[in-house]
Amino acid sequence: MVRRNEIRPGERAVDLPPAYDASLYFIGRIRTPWSDRLDCPRQGRFDGPQCRLEIDARWQEGLDSIEEFARLEVLYWLHQSRRDLVHQSPRNGGRARGVFSLRTPVRPNPIGTAIVKLERVEGAVLFVRGLDCLDGTPLIDVKPDRTLFEPPAPPRKGDFQVGDA
Amino acid sequence: MVRRNEIRPGERAVDLPPAYDASLYFIGRIRTPWSDRLDCPRQGRFDGPQCRLEIDARWQEGLDSIEEFARLEVLYWLHQSRRDLVHQSPRNGGRARGVFSLRTPVRPNPIGTAIVKLERVEGAVLFVRGLDCLDGTPLIDVKPDRTLFEPPAPPRKGDFQVGDA
Repeated sequence: MVRRNEIRPGERAVDLPPAYDASLYFIGRIRTPWSDRLDCPRQGRFDGPQCRLEIDARWQEGLDSIEEFARLEVLYWLHQSRRDLVHQSPRNGGRARGVFSLRTPVRPNPIGTAIVKLERVEGAVLFVRGLDCLDGTPLIDVKPDRTLFEPPAPPRKGDFQVGDA
Repeated sequence: MVRRNEIRPGERAVDLPPAYDASLYFIGRIRTPWSDRLDCPRQGRFDGPQCRLEIDARWQEGLDSIEEFARLEVLYWLHQSRRDLVHQSPRNGGRARGVFSLRTPVRPNPIGTAIVKLERVEGAVLFVRGLDCLDGTPLIDVKPDRTLFEPPAPPRKGDFQVGDA
């Protein structure tokens, strides 16, 4: 649903809330080969071009032990996206759908998530593959892929809770 | 790494940046059986208790067609977490690690992500399983699970780009 900034037939915008509820720090920048939204892949691939996650010096110590994980979950801020389109249509005039049934960058909180393959770490820079975002995209978070992560602390009661409660 | 608010031996805090870079709208609330962080599961499970995602009326139209997806990706704001601990230790005194090699709620931008199983939709409420967060957690985003989603728009150049660029 990438667009310059137009509203297409069948789309609907809402009034944005009068105030924000929480705020983010950008923790670094993402470097990719794509400088125009219309060139970005719609979805990243593990055999795609190598990209870099450049972490700000303030947070560099947070990378300790990250090389243990072959795949990472990356969160980033889709800073060029409008936020008010609840109902969106593809450019080719296909059926409109709700924003939450799309992975469009145009959403109330324009946060992108990707799973990337970690190839190596050099200082505060992670070399990865699997991204689909613009060069210069602000980085919000990096975590181990959930399927590779085992919590280092002992389990809690809730971990064993199943059923209809 | 859940905690009340203590700093443990081996942990290190940084000075937070002087200003924020972007802001979020809470789009709804999450209802779970857990009212204390120390009871929450460390990781959600698809056979865990049923939970609810309650979407604010403003965004309800964004749910159109969401029932087509058996699994959703959910982003939420871990509103009780401190943000300055770059190096963290488990409560039991295990080895300290960088925040980005942990899925701890204590992180520069305390955003949790989960993959949930969607059981049904009633109006603006999604009934799901697989969450691990506190009752009342602010909801930030809902998207189709990436492994189930096919972009409705035609592919772009970047989708076919591979290799070392």
